[in-house]
Amino acid sequence: MTAEQAKTHEALFSERAAGIKQSAVRDVFELSLDPSLVSLAGGNPYLQLLPLEKIGQIAQRIIVEQGPVALQYGSGLGTEELRAQILEVMAAEGITNVGFDDVVVTNGSQSAQDMACKVFCDPGDTVLCEDPTYVGALNTFEAYQVTARPVGTDENGLIPAALRERIAELRAAGERIKFLYTIPNFNNPSGITLAAERRQEIVDICREEGILILEDNPYGMLRYEGEAAPTLRSLDAENVIYMGSFSKIFAPGLRIGWAAVPTHLFRRFYLAGEAVALCPPTLNQMIISSYLEEHDWKGQVAKYNELYRSRRDAMLAALAKYLPAGITHTHPAGGFFIWLTLPEGIDTYELLQEGVKAGVIFIPGAAFSPSGEASNKLRLAFCSVDEDTITEGVRRLSLLLQQALAS
Amino acid sequence: MTAEQAKTHEALFSERAAGIKQSAVRDVFELSLDPSLVSLAGGNPYLQLLPLEKIGQIAQRIIVEQGPVALQYGSGLGTEELRAQILEVMAAEGITNVGFDDVVVTNGSQSAQDMACKVFCDPGDTVLCEDPTYVGALNTFEAYQVTARPVGTDENGLIPAALRERIAELRAAGERIKFLYTIPNFNNPSGITLAAERRQEIVDICREEGILILEDNPYGMLRYEGEAAPTLRSLDAENVIYMGSFSKIFAPGLRIGWAAVPTHLFRRFYLAGEAVALCPPTLNQMIISSYLEEHDWKGQVAKYNELYRSRRDAMLAALAKYLPAGITHTHPAGGFFIWLTLPEGIDTYELLQEGVKAGVIFIPGAAFSPSGEASNKLRLAFCSVDEDTITEGVRRLSLLLQQALAS
Repeated sequence: MTAEQAKTHEALFSERAAGIKQSAVRDVFELSLDPSLVSLAGGNPYLQLLPLEKIGQIAQRIIVEQGPVALQYGSGLGTEELRAQILEVMAAEGITNVGFDDVVVTNGSQSAQDMACKVFCDPGDTVLCEDPTYVGALNTFEAYQVTARPVGTDENGLIPAALRERIAELRAAGERIKFLYTIPNFNNPSGITLAAERRQEIVDICREEGILILEDNPYGMLRYEGEAAPTLRSLDAENVIYMGSFSKIFAPGLRIGWAAVPTHLFRRFYLAGEAVALCPPTLNQMIISSYLEEHDWKGQVAKYNELYRSRRDAMLAALAKYLPAGITHTHPAGGFFIWLTLPEGIDTYELLQEGVKAGVIFIPGAAFSPSGEASNKLRLAFCSVDEDTITEGVRRLSLLLQQALAS
Repeated sequence: MTAEQAKTHEALFSERAAGIKQSAVRDVFELSLDPSLVSLAGGNPYLQLLPLEKIGQIAQRIIVEQGPVALQYGSGLGTEELRAQILEVMAAEGITNVGFDDVVVTNGSQSAQDMACKVFCDPGDTVLCEDPTYVGALNTFEAYQVTARPVGTDENGLIPAALRERIAELRAAGERIKFLYTIPNFNNPSGITLAAERRQEIVDICREEGILILEDNPYGMLRYEGEAAPTLRSLDAENVIYMGSFSKIFAPGLRIGWAAVPTHLFRRFYLAGEAVALCPPTLNQMIISSYLEEHDWKGQVAKYNELYRSRRDAMLAALAKYLPAGITHTHPAGGFFIWLTLPEGIDTYELLQEGVKAGVIFIPGAAFSPSGEASNKLRLAFCSVDEDTITEGVRRLSLLLQQALAS
């Protein structure tokens, strides 16, 4: 094509297109396929633990006996059977204030985030979030030209007083705040959990200030110690949109999640999703329904937790053994991730290039920051590889860090 | 909740939220579940013809033998295997100017439409389309606050001179036109096909005018007579984004489609999708790959075509036999739909309410019009029910129409 044509096409892009970028997690995804590297990068659940024979039989039976339904278009809301079961899954996390009509099945919870931005955010609007926070959420915010503003946190998650101050400060500057996006349990990437005693206050502040809460809870059931704190949704049915997912408690490749939406916001929320993908895949919903019904899914989560707990412990032990002084890290009670803080001045994106040579990869901290600025932090995942590999990966990383600290 | 809180929440909605509405097709979807009604409404493929035993075995084998891959996150581009096979599927429609790296797998082609709007359309932008056109596309345009402007058509589809005039007129009025959205083969809902001899000219006009083409071709292979005309994409690799789908040639409940995107536009196009749903479901892609490889999928399309041809013929025969004078309709050479035009002044949305009482349902024309205004047209689908049912449905509809004409 001619240069002129290329220029013409360039002018056709939307304003938002310039802000849509490749997620750094995805960059590293390609790298992680190299078998000589130890990958502590990906947050992939360890699916080898699943009852694959049984799931295979379930899929076969559904297609043979109910193929014309399973392979057909379905309701944009999701199947009635799965929506009813989702109420039970939420009940297992202590959420009992959601009605059947308040649940919409989505293409993973990523898609629920897209829906939330679509119905609530105009370009230039503001959302509040943790720093660090989930990279997929940041990508969605950028695609909607929304400004993500971090709220102060400590080792117990969001700080209520900091939230209050931040809201006042941003409003004084004329910003329109639509919602607080938060991962209260085992944050991705920090692993930090919002302390139980702070939860009511966070909920109250948002309600008083007229700001919705978008609660993202994919890891809530993957707890390896301690008592579960109440979900924000269980504390406020009218001001909290809850996003759940089968990706971590069952299987991400089915791409099925859900949102529980306050009744008065529900209709416009779900219609936003219908315009994107018509309906979630019917077969996948039916496989999950049969799995939940026929398999001891809670026992399966317990099995996952046993495995992930020992992997977490292996990583914590390796960090204690190998990590040079001057580097701190979080101690997650669940989920998939540990967050490392290096001395100021070390850019972990550059460190990743060295890591590839040294045979270990991780996700640089910049990916998870609303600012996107160079970061001295990094995320390690302990979910995908076995204890020995974790130990070897941390050993390689520690050698690398020693070099970085020395130079 | 208090009235004040409700008001606070109302103010949180985005500007675009007000434009997102329930599709009329979906309204009717609920109705169509009543077994006493003859539904000529839904465009659901007749999946009973599929080799369900074989597909069930395929799904089982994939889960048992490759479960940790099939149930895991995958690439945002889709699996390499399916992307390569999509090149073969497009080749079967005469499209050979697409490279492997130009293909992205999507959550149905609805999701490709969402991606196109996301990367190309700012609020207030204009897209050109046929009138009538696909309701799902109209919903997507509304969700992006894009104005859909109809271009003149006749029984041979888009009129090149009308396209040229429309562009000039809209530009004179200061509108920013981003792309022409078109369903050249067996348009949903009209059944009309763009004449072969017009295609090069339509492609040339858009290229000269610096307007992209978004070619939606879910029905292209479902041709019951005559010769296939070249796809627009095959005539211009640099200015046409092509959307394909497995929904009509295989199964819609898997929600897998694709886009073939000009190389220089590809990266930003696909990243827009990744921000919405991370990746298409892996299991579904693998089922389609094995189906394409192990089953005579072209023979299956031929079987579908034989069935749909006789259903179309049954509908045309019933229309010839029962339809009162003063009503015209299209004669589609393929696809799923016939489009009826009633005398001016009859509102087919009101007629649908009568239809429910008379035991027959269809989709009122207003659903498919960019204007959304009351319409004297309606869509009949011949894909989902057998010949006798089609005949009975047309008979009931004709009685209804006689009454409407009389009053």
